[in-house]
Amino acid sequence: MIDPPTAATARVSEWLSQFASALAQKNPAAAANLFADECYWRDLVSFTWNIKTLEGKSEIEAMLAATISGTQPASWQIDGDATEEYGATAAWFTFETAVARGRGYLRLKAGKCWTLLTTMTELKGFEEKRGATRAPGVQHGVFPNRKTWLERKTEAEAELGYTAQPYCVIIGGGQGGIALAARLKRLEVPTIVIEKNERPGDSWRKRYKSLCLHDPVWYDHLPYLSFPDHWPVFSPKDKIADWLEMYVKVMELNYWHSSECRGAQYHDDTNDWTVTVDRNGETVVLRPRQLVLATGMSGVPNVPKIAGTETFRGTLQHSSQFRGDGDYRGKKCVVLGSNNSAHDICAALWEQDADVAMIQRSSTHVARSESLMELGLGRLYSEAAVKSGITTETADLLFASIPYRIMHTFDIPIYQEIARRDANLYERLAKAGFLLDFGDDGSGLFMKYLRRGSGYYIDVGASELVADGRIKLRSGVNIERIEAESVVLTDGTVLAADLIVYATGYGSMNGWAARLISQEVANRVGKCWGLGSGTTKDPGPWEGELRNMWKPTQQPGLWFHGGNLHQSRHYSLYLALQLKARLEGIPTPVYGMTAVHHRA
Amino acid sequence: MIDPPTAATARVSEWLSQFASALAQKNPAAAANLFADECYWRDLVSFTWNIKTLEGKSEIEAMLAATISGTQPASWQIDGDATEEYGATAAWFTFETAVARGRGYLRLKAGKCWTLLTTMTELKGFEEKRGATRAPGVQHGVFPNRKTWLERKTEAEAELGYTAQPYCVIIGGGQGGIALAARLKRLEVPTIVIEKNERPGDSWRKRYKSLCLHDPVWYDHLPYLSFPDHWPVFSPKDKIADWLEMYVKVMELNYWHSSECRGAQYHDDTNDWTVTVDRNGETVVLRPRQLVLATGMSGVPNVPKIAGTETFRGTLQHSSQFRGDGDYRGKKCVVLGSNNSAHDICAALWEQDADVAMIQRSSTHVARSESLMELGLGRLYSEAAVKSGITTETADLLFASIPYRIMHTFDIPIYQEIARRDANLYERLAKAGFLLDFGDDGSGLFMKYLRRGSGYYIDVGASELVADGRIKLRSGVNIERIEAESVVLTDGTVLAADLIVYATGYGSMNGWAARLISQEVANRVGKCWGLGSGTTKDPGPWEGELRNMWKPTQQPGLWFHGGNLHQSRHYSLYLALQLKARLEGIPTPVYGMTAVHHRA
Repeated sequence: MIDPPTAATARVSEWLSQFASALAQKNPAAAANLFADECYWRDLVSFTWNIKTLEGKSEIEAMLAATISGTQPASWQIDGDATEEYGATAAWFTFETAVARGRGYLRLKAGKCWTLLTTMTELKGFEEKRGATRAPGVQHGVFPNRKTWLERKTEAEAELGYTAQPYCVIIGGGQGGIALAARLKRLEVPTIVIEKNERPGDSWRKRYKSLCLHDPVWYDHLPYLSFPDHWPVFSPKDKIADWLEMYVKVMELNYWHSSECRGAQYHDDTNDWTVTVDRNGETVVLRPRQLVLATGMSGVPNVPKIAGTETFRGTLQHSSQFRGDGDYRGKKCVVLGSNNSAHDICAALWEQDADVAMIQRSSTHVARSESLMELGLGRLYSEAAVKSGITTETADLLFASIPYRIMHTFDIPIYQEIARRDANLYERLAKAGFLLDFGDDGSGLFMKYLRRGSGYYIDVGASELVADGRIKLRSGVNIERIEAESVVLTDGTVLAADLIVYATGYGSMNGWAARLISQEVANRVGKCWGLGSGTTKDPGPWEGELRNMWKPTQQPGLWFHGGNLHQSRHYSLYLALQLKARLEGIPTPVYGMTAVHHRA
Repeated sequence: MIDPPTAATARVSEWLSQFASALAQKNPAAAANLFADECYWRDLVSFTWNIKTLEGKSEIEAMLAATISGTQPASWQIDGDATEEYGATAAWFTFETAVARGRGYLRLKAGKCWTLLTTMTELKGFEEKRGATRAPGVQHGVFPNRKTWLERKTEAEAELGYTAQPYCVIIGGGQGGIALAARLKRLEVPTIVIEKNERPGDSWRKRYKSLCLHDPVWYDHLPYLSFPDHWPVFSPKDKIADWLEMYVKVMELNYWHSSECRGAQYHDDTNDWTVTVDRNGETVVLRPRQLVLATGMSGVPNVPKIAGTETFRGTLQHSSQFRGDGDYRGKKCVVLGSNNSAHDICAALWEQDADVAMIQRSSTHVARSESLMELGLGRLYSEAAVKSGITTETADLLFASIPYRIMHTFDIPIYQEIARRDANLYERLAKAGFLLDFGDDGSGLFMKYLRRGSGYYIDVGASELVADGRIKLRSGVNIERIEAESVVLTDGTVLAADLIVYATGYGSMNGWAARLISQEVANRVGKCWGLGSGTTKDPGPWEGELRNMWKPTQQPGLWFHGGNLHQSRHYSLYLALQLKARLEGIPTPVYGMTAVHHRA
C-alpha cells in the first residue's frame, strides 16, 4: 500500500511541474518568477558548466536566458518525500539535460523557491562502469597470445607519457590529486599524477609526528572506497598515509612518484600544454590538454623577512619543515603564529619537554574538536547521521545546498552554542591574554576556512597549555628582529631561542602557477580560494563561490583542485565530469566566469 | 502505520515462543517435539562450541540435554517478516546465550521446524569496536612523551613474537590466513601470520599468468572491506594479489612474510605450542596457545610415481609449479589430469601455440562459468541479489542454512537446468571422448567441491578446445611410463613430450600437520575436508560437516582454516570467536566432536 503524498510533497511536485513547464517553454522569466525574492540557485556543472551560484531572480533569469537552449533540461521528478527544515519545505529531485543526468535539492518558502541546488551526476553515454556494468575482468574463451591483466597494465604504464600522451596531468599526489585521479580513472580519462615524494601518502608521513587528521572519519572518506567501520575517528597521519598508498594501488592510478614538474607552458595554437617533468632523474615532456594543480590548499610557504635572520645560531624552520623528531628537552622554542600549525607544534614541543613560547600577532578563532564534531558536523557527518540514513553522498549534497551568501547565518547560532558550551576554556584563554575571535561576524571556523583558509585552531589539547601558561603566550606582538640566540619582540621583550618556527601559513595556490608556469599566467587566473566576503583577509567584491576552485579558470586548460578531504572527495566528481566532457568533445559552454579582482 | 503481522509471521512468532519456553524450562524433549520428523539443526558455535549439524529429533534432544544448562539461550525474537521458500515458511531471528548474541534462520513446514540455523555473532563484553565504538585514533589533550600511533605500532611489532608471545599463530598467509587474522585483530587476539612468500598475495602472483578467480566478485569479498563497485567480476590473479597486499597493511595485520614454519610441537603440560619459524633467515621460537593451519585447500601436492621419470629430458612439473611464462611455441605438452588446473593449463599452453594433450584418467564434471554464475550463485551472490537487498552477510547465512545432508537435492535441479542449457557443449565434449559426470548423484559442482575438493572444471574456455580437438584428449587412460622424450599411455599410445605437467591435485590438509608437526598428530586429527557422503573419493561414514574445518580437532590447540573466498570470509568469524572465547577464559564445552574415520 502506497501512502498518498503528503501535502508538502504535493506542493513540491507542483512547483517542479511549473518549473519544468517554464523551462520546456524556454521562458526564463516565468522560471525566475517561481523563485522567492531572496533566492539562490547553485549549479554544479549541469546548466552552467561551472561551479556557480546565481543570487536573486534577475541573475537566475539571465543564466537561463543564456543556457536554456543548449541545456535542454527535462524529466524533473521529485525523489522521495518532502521534509521541513530551516522554515522551508525541502526535497530531493532528479532531472536530465541533453547530455547528462542530474540530482538536486530544493527548498521552498511560501510556495516559492528559496534555495535550489542542481548537480550533474553523470554524462549520458559515459557512465562509470559499476555494479551490473562492471568489467568482466577476464575474457572467457580462448585467445591466442592473450595478454593478461598484468601484461596489459604494465604495457599501458610503459606507454603513458611516452608513446601515448595523457589527456590530463595532475600536479600533486596528495589526497586531492588522488581523489581526482580516481574519478578520472573511472571515467576513462588518461591521466598521470605527478608527485614529488617517493610514496603516496608521504605528504602526510613527512609531517610532524604527532599530526592526526582534524576532521572526523565520516567527513574524510575517499571516493568509491570508504574506510572500514572500525577506522578511528581521527586518523593518525601514518595511517591515512597507508590508506592513500593502497588506494593508489588498488584503484590503479597512473601515479609517478619521485617526480617533479619543472615547468609547464600552454600553447594557444594547439590548445595543449608542454609539461616538463623530472621523473626520478629522467626528463620527460608531457603533452596533455588539461593541467590540474592539486598542490594542496597550501600554496608556497609564507616566510616573513625578519631582520637578523642570518645571525641566528639555532634552527629556523617554516612549520612545513618541522618534523618534531629532534631532541627538544629543555630547548627554548619560539613559535611565530597562533593558528592550527602553531598550536600543534607548540603542543608537540611541550610534550617533549621543551620550553615553548607562542607569538600571537593577531586574533585566532579556537573551537574544541569535540564541540565542532558534535555541533558543527554532527548533523551530516557522524555515526548518528549514518544511522539515520545520511550517506556520505547525501551529506555532501546537503552541505553543498547551503548558499555561501547566507552560510554564516546558519553557522552563527552553532558558534554561539559552542561559546556557551566551552565558556570556561574561552574565559581562561582570554585571561591568559589570548586574542580570541569567532570570525568577523561570529560565524566561526568553517567560514574562516572558506574565506581565508586560516585563522583558526581546532583544539585537540594545546589550548589548555595556552590557558594555563604552560605554553608561554605573547599576544599582540610580532618579532622585531632576530639575534644570535634570541628573538626581540615588537614590545622590546627578548626571548632566548634555540628553535624558531614560522607557523606563518602559505600563499595562495596560484603561487604554484607562478612557479611552475609563469607569473603572467598566475596573474591571469588570480587569487585562489576565498569568497570575497569583505571580511579579514577576504577582500571583496563578492565572488559567490571559491575563486578558481574545481572549475574553469581564465587560463584555458588550467584547473585547481584541493580543499579538505570532504571537498577533495565531493568536488573531484564535478571537475572530473568537466574534463571528461572536454575529452569527449561534448560542448561545454561556460556561463558566469568571474573577472579576476585579486592577484594573490 | 505498522501493518499487522502476516499469518506466516504470526506462525513463526508462535513457534519461536514455544521453542523459547521449552528451552527456558530446560525441556529438551519438548523442544525436540517442535521439529518435524525430517529436521536439521545446524549450530555455528552458539550452543555446541562447534560447527555441528544435528539431524533428526533424537540428535537435537541429545544435544540440548547436554548443553542447555550451560548455554542458557534466551530472548528469541523474530527479525522481519516471514517468507515462503522451498515449500516452507522461513524467517530470521535473533537470540542470546549466557555469553553471546546470535542470529539465525529457520524454516517451518506444517508448523514444525524443518531446518534451523543458529549462529554466534558476538561475545558479550568482547564486541568488535565499530561505528560508534570505534577507536578515537588520537587522545585529545596533552601527554608528555606521547607515543604516536606509528611509534606504538612499531614497538608492538618489534615485541610480538619476541618479548611478547602471540596467543595464536596462523601458518599460511593466503586469503584464508588473512581473513582469519583480520577477524582476530578486530577481536584483539594477538596473532602472527607466517607466510613463506615475500609479499601478501604472492601465492596468487606466482601462479600461472592467465589465472583469474573462478568465483564472481560478490562471492569473494573479504571481511570488513568489500571490493569497490567497479571491481571486475573475475579478478585477475595479480589484481587480487594487490588487494590482499593492501588489506594486510590497512587492517594492520601482524604478517611475517619470507617466513617458514620449521616445526611445531604441542605441550600437554602447559597447553601451548612451540612453533619454530625461520623468519627471513633468523630462527624465532613462538609459544602460542593456538595454532591454525591455513595452508590452503590444497595440502601437499600429489605427485604420481611413474616409471621412467628420471629418464625424462624435458620439463616435468606439478601444476602448482607451472608458471606459464616459458616459450611453448610448437612444444609438445602433455598434461596429466582433467580437472580445473589441467584445463586452465592446457588452455594457457594452447594460447601460446603449444601442441597440447590432456590425459583424462577418470570422469570430470564441467560447468560453464556463465551458467554457474547465473543458475548456481545468482540467487545469493550477484548484482541482482545485491539490488534485492541480499547483503554478503545475509547471503552467507542463507547459504549456511541449507543442511549438507540434503544440499544435493537443492542442487540436482540446478544442474539439470545447466545440462539442458549447455547441452550442445556437453554433446560435443562427449563426442570428443571426454568422460563427463555431474557428480555421482547429479548434484554437480559444489557438492563435488564439498565432498572431495576436486573433480570438476569451471569452464572459462578450455572446454571448447577439448570439444573440437584443439586440445588433444586421451580419456580413460593413464601414463604407464615416461621415456626420454615421450610418455607411454596405458593403452600403448606414445606421445612426444617436451613438457609434462601433473595436474594431479593435492593431498588432504592434514598432510601439512604431518610435515610441520608429526605424523602422529596428523593421524590423530585425521583427514580434512569431505562430508563422508559415500560418493567417489568421499568415503563414509557420514560426518554432517566438513571434517576438521573451522572447529576443534582431536589435537588440542590445533585448527584448520581455509576453503574458497566465501568460506574463508564467513567461517573466519566462527573460528575467531572460538579462539577469542578461549583467550578470555570463557567456558567452551565442545559438543559432538566426531571420531576420526580416515587418516588421509
